Amino acid sequence: MKILITGSSGNIGSKLVKLLADRFEFTGLDRLPPRSGPQIPTVITEAHEVEDLRPALAGKDGVIHLAGNPAVDTPWPNVLRNNIVLTRNLFESCRLEKVPRVVFASSNHAVGLFENDEPYSRIRAGDYAGLDPSTLKRIDHTAPLRPDSDYGVSKAFGEGIGRSYSERFGLQVACLRIGTFSEKDDPTANVRMRATWCSHRDLAQLVSLCLTCPDLRFEIFYGVSGNTWRFWDISHAAAVLGYSPMDNAERYY
Amino acid sequence: MKILITGSSGNIGSKLVKLLADRFEFTGLDRLPPRSGPQIPTVITEAHEVEDLRPALAGKDGVIHLAGNPAVDTPWPNVLRNNIVLTRNLFESCRLEKVPRVVFASSNHAVGLFENDEPYSRIRAGDYAGLDPSTLKRIDHTAPLRPDSDYGVSKAFGEGIGRSYSERFGLQVACLRIGTFSEKDDPTANVRMRATWCSHRDLAQLVSLCLTCPDLRFEIFYGVSGNTWRFWDISHAAAVLGYSPMDNAERYY
Repeated sequence: MKILITGSSGNIGSKLVKLLADRFEFTGLDRLPPRSGPQIPTVITEAHEVEDLRPALAGKDGVIHLAGNPAVDTPWPNVLRNNIVLTRNLFESCRLEKVPRVVFASSNHAVGLFENDEPYSRIRAGDYAGLDPSTLKRIDHTAPLRPDSDYGVSKAFGEGIGRSYSERFGLQVACLRIGTFSEKDDPTANVRMRATWCSHRDLAQLVSLCLTCPDLRFEIFYGVSGNTWRFWDISHAAAVLGYSPMDNAERYY
Repeated sequence: MKILITGSSGNIGSKLVKLLADRFEFTGLDRLPPRSGPQIPTVITEAHEVEDLRPALAGKDGVIHLAGNPAVDTPWPNVLRNNIVLTRNLFESCRLEKVPRVVFASSNHAVGLFENDEPYSRIRAGDYAGLDPSTLKRIDHTAPLRPDSDYGVSKAFGEGIGRSYSERFGLQVACLRIGTFSEKDDPTANVRMRATWCSHRDLAQLVSLCLTCPDLRFEIFYGVSGNTWRFWDISHAAAVLGYSPMDNAERYY
């Protein structure tokens, strides 16, 4: 499969290219050249316009859309340009170029305000007293959107336009609400990661399954490892994709 | 209560001013001057910037946010400027000016793709064979977003940022997914309106209740009359607000 990966030079993009290079024929798209690691052909563009994206999408079988500002505290003007407008232009370009499938890097911050509520507020702080992970009610793909930031709002926007394009134009769209992906692949930087960590190879597995699974229309999955204290659901990804995480932050604690 | 009404010179705005002028102290905001009818002080602005909105919001007790392109086929550049950016700037201005409450004119088009599914597809076409309105499963505020257009995506966006501002900054936000509001207040223009009509006085009742009800935090309601064939829920508005519609399109058929 010929896959365009936007944001290919970024933290997540460069790791996915490395882990999945033997399974997909990648082209990158980024405003910066590739980091060290496997060098893939990369279109360098700020991608402000549909016309910046279309040539890179022509003839592709799918796209992994990671480009955009990744920080939860990104100011609104950047969120607007690099997350909202760019993501809309990406979907529109896929429609125009008849690219059948999009894996959209959404974020846990689309539903981040659940972490103000118990028991999630306690789990994220490392206070597990009286809690049993085997009976924990987890946040799943049917939860209402509760974005915790302009960044989170932009990810909710991307899911909304993704669903609209999926149902109106037949685009196949998988939204991954990615948890905490750390450059060093280590869940011990803060105690919240004991719940929210997504290891490199587990995200690579999810992305690969989203690109290859048959009969995808529109789905939302959580990008999280099989952490004992995860508060996001992975049973939907297991049922639809066969996702079976290899990692659990608990082994590091 | 001192209320700013954006889009005050438009179709819905001018009707609400007329029906509610004796209950609220209105200031208008629009890019055009008021139509005929009760003349209210009106700030004339394209409202592209937060600074265009803030002076009009200073000291207000609430805002009815109707401004934006109202057509479902509005092209993306206009949706982006007049619905997405303007709505974000409205919420941000309310935060800065400490305006406690926003009634946001969302739209049924945020969930419009349900009308591709049975039984809604048949009801909207006037085919009621074998259907019983008393047992109809109606689309409620917990339904997933299924925007049918860029316009619908912009309304979903407004709800998302509204929820985020509500939970993060304590803004009280009511989103009204308005059905079909016709200038002539007549549900017979097309058969879909037998389901989707929202009469002038029923919308005025809803808006008034949203402005005055105690303990509002974030809510989504459908702006629809008590039509026998409505496929949107009004029981949530009845329970939270005491909404009791006076009209039913069926009387016109």
